[in-house]
Amino acid sequence: MDLIKAAYVATEPDRDPSTLAENIAREQSLELTRELIPPAIAESLLGRVLSVERLEAGRWRFEIGYPVELASGQIGQLLHLLYGNISFYPRIRLEQLVLPEPLLGELPGPRAGLPGIRAWVEVPQRALLMTVLKPRGSSPAVLADLALAFARGGGDLIKDDQNLVERDAVAFRRRVTACAEVLARAADETGRRCLYLPHVAGSGDHLHRQLDVVVELGLAGVVLCTWIMGLETAASAARARKLMWLAHPAMAGVLTEPADRGIASPVLLGTLVRAAGADISIFPGPGGRIRSRQFSDIEATCRALTRPMGSLAPTLPCFGGGKTLDQAPEIATAQGPDCALLVGGDLIGRGADIRADTARTIDALDALTRP
Amino acid sequence: MDLIKAAYVATEPDRDPSTLAENIAREQSLELTRELIPPAIAESLLGRVLSVERLEAGRWRFEIGYPVELASGQIGQLLHLLYGNISFYPRIRLEQLVLPEPLLGELPGPRAGLPGIRAWVEVPQRALLMTVLKPRGSSPAVLADLALAFARGGGDLIKDDQNLVERDAVAFRRRVTACAEVLARAADETGRRCLYLPHVAGSGDHLHRQLDVVVELGLAGVVLCTWIMGLETAASAARARKLMWLAHPAMAGVLTEPADRGIASPVLLGTLVRAAGADISIFPGPGGRIRSRQFSDIEATCRALTRPMGSLAPTLPCFGGGKTLDQAPEIATAQGPDCALLVGGDLIGRGADIRADTARTIDALDALTRP
Repeated sequence: MDLIKAAYVATEPDRDPSTLAENIAREQSLELTRELIPPAIAESLLGRVLSVERLEAGRWRFEIGYPVELASGQIGQLLHLLYGNISFYPRIRLEQLVLPEPLLGELPGPRAGLPGIRAWVEVPQRALLMTVLKPRGSSPAVLADLALAFARGGGDLIKDDQNLVERDAVAFRRRVTACAEVLARAADETGRRCLYLPHVAGSGDHLHRQLDVVVELGLAGVVLCTWIMGLETAASAARARKLMWLAHPAMAGVLTEPADRGIASPVLLGTLVRAAGADISIFPGPGGRIRSRQFSDIEATCRALTRPMGSLAPTLPCFGGGKTLDQAPEIATAQGPDCALLVGGDLIGRGADIRADTARTIDALDALTRP
Repeated sequence: MDLIKAAYVATEPDRDPSTLAENIAREQSLELTRELIPPAIAESLLGRVLSVERLEAGRWRFEIGYPVELASGQIGQLLHLLYGNISFYPRIRLEQLVLPEPLLGELPGPRAGLPGIRAWVEVPQRALLMTVLKPRGSSPAVLADLALAFARGGGDLIKDDQNLVERDAVAFRRRVTACAEVLARAADETGRRCLYLPHVAGSGDHLHRQLDVVVELGLAGVVLCTWIMGLETAASAARARKLMWLAHPAMAGVLTEPADRGIASPVLLGTLVRAAGADISIFPGPGGRIRSRQFSDIEATCRALTRPMGSLAPTLPCFGGGKTLDQAPEIATAQGPDCALLVGGDLIGRGADIRADTARTIDALDALTRP
């Protein structure tokens, strides 16, 4: 039988570790005591404990196999299966995840992903530079000026700040149109395209009207706050419009950052975000105002986003949270070229020098991969 | 200016507490250093520190006011505003939330809520009894038999287990129809209606096809896993079909259960779930396999769901996670009558006695409010 293999670490387990492992396998699959589950259903659908291993004092590792059918081919149900109810258990952390072939074959994966984004911006090798339009409250013209200066400097990617949210699609259209127009102008001047990703938020008709505007304007992608609107909701909204999407990690830190509970960054912002089909996954990464708790998490999250995974395209890892232009070459040297670096406030603070400083940073990133 | 007032507790702050409070106010509102924010925008949109107070050793309480406009009248954006980026900060917990009148006036609130559900099931006073249809893998006939026995015993509410998920709407329709039909039959026999809430999951067209089935069958509500599909996504999906909805807390434990981070249960599963318009909010509550970490959380979550809050109807608090029939009267005595008690496995395990044991439990709950 094909199993989804999930490895959990329990810290100071509140009961006998083997019992706890069995409890998790049951809680997450059929949520019923063993004797009440008909044998045929237990055989085909009950989660099973594959191993129980003592790590250092007070920590135990359980590997649990879930019959692949339990995910129903849906990312939302997969999340539920992996961590739904046990989010209420004390000190259980999902550390590793292996998805079996049949499930990988059902997942859409990124439409464009890392290679598609490289092709779109025509940057085959080096690390990419992204900036963010903010603050909320700025006029469309001010945001467009920022976008224009960055694009003229040769910047690769622009995202809206996730605080940019309008109550109506008319205001959304006005702002996004202003930015899209200057970027078209910059592309004519420079001969290179800068990929602009507006932030689309809300629900129902309001969400759909914003997505319609993005498509009408001929834009290629959007920013979605996946842990607010729902990972699968975000994926299907983008897929229905054939849009690329950047998965923003707002709210996800409560899962990735604790040492003793939640879901490790490589699983949550790596494997699961890629499985859902995000083309870009932002996470803190090294340096800056917000940074990943462990260096090993950064490496492992990048690997989960880019290593072979069925036929799924790799997702572009993007480091965000207060990085500076000056850090960019250093981070790209340490992490390799297959990433994007998000520089927001530090770029905005350069005012009249945005264009020149962007150009100098792009040159420095280029130099790292020049033969 | 109308402010959303959020009180955070920082445990062992990683910097000077007053600085940290200012950092949170900025991070969550405009995400830009102070000197880069134009004064007019800072004036109208920057979060502001209202108080910084030392609690016991190592713990500090910050009250922060966010201009109400930052929520854009959207529940998703409100969540983002309250905890989005700082979910990556170390040891910050949102403990209290006060929403100002103008925002309360924009929120839909529950369609039916506690009074509407009482009216629907015609139980004006006592605590309500709910069961759950499971395990996944059972035939529609087996699940329908369980529903029928519970309804014949006078049970009030039935929810689908959140593991009940189909890949196609045809299988969903077959299962839900089987249960709806026996419940209609039971209502004819008993003269009382049992409220059946199917679990609806997934995204996009698949989600909408399931909701269509629910409406076609004339059912009144659904179960939605709000922390998987997105709180606002869930709310708008139900509202568009004029359905009642039960907010299931899968995944939410990672927010509510830690002592030093996340969002306290009274805010998350109380105020925010009610603001989004859930008619029923499940949370662990007292007793059973999964229970709330702190007794005070239970009281406070119930209060947040039911106390006066603008013109929003109260939401029915429901305690779930392995409660037993025998515990029901005791829990209802302790918590008062304005709650529902979810009994799953314990009821299923009673087999041929489900009907009689349900009837006896309903009698016991009735007796508590009999004059």
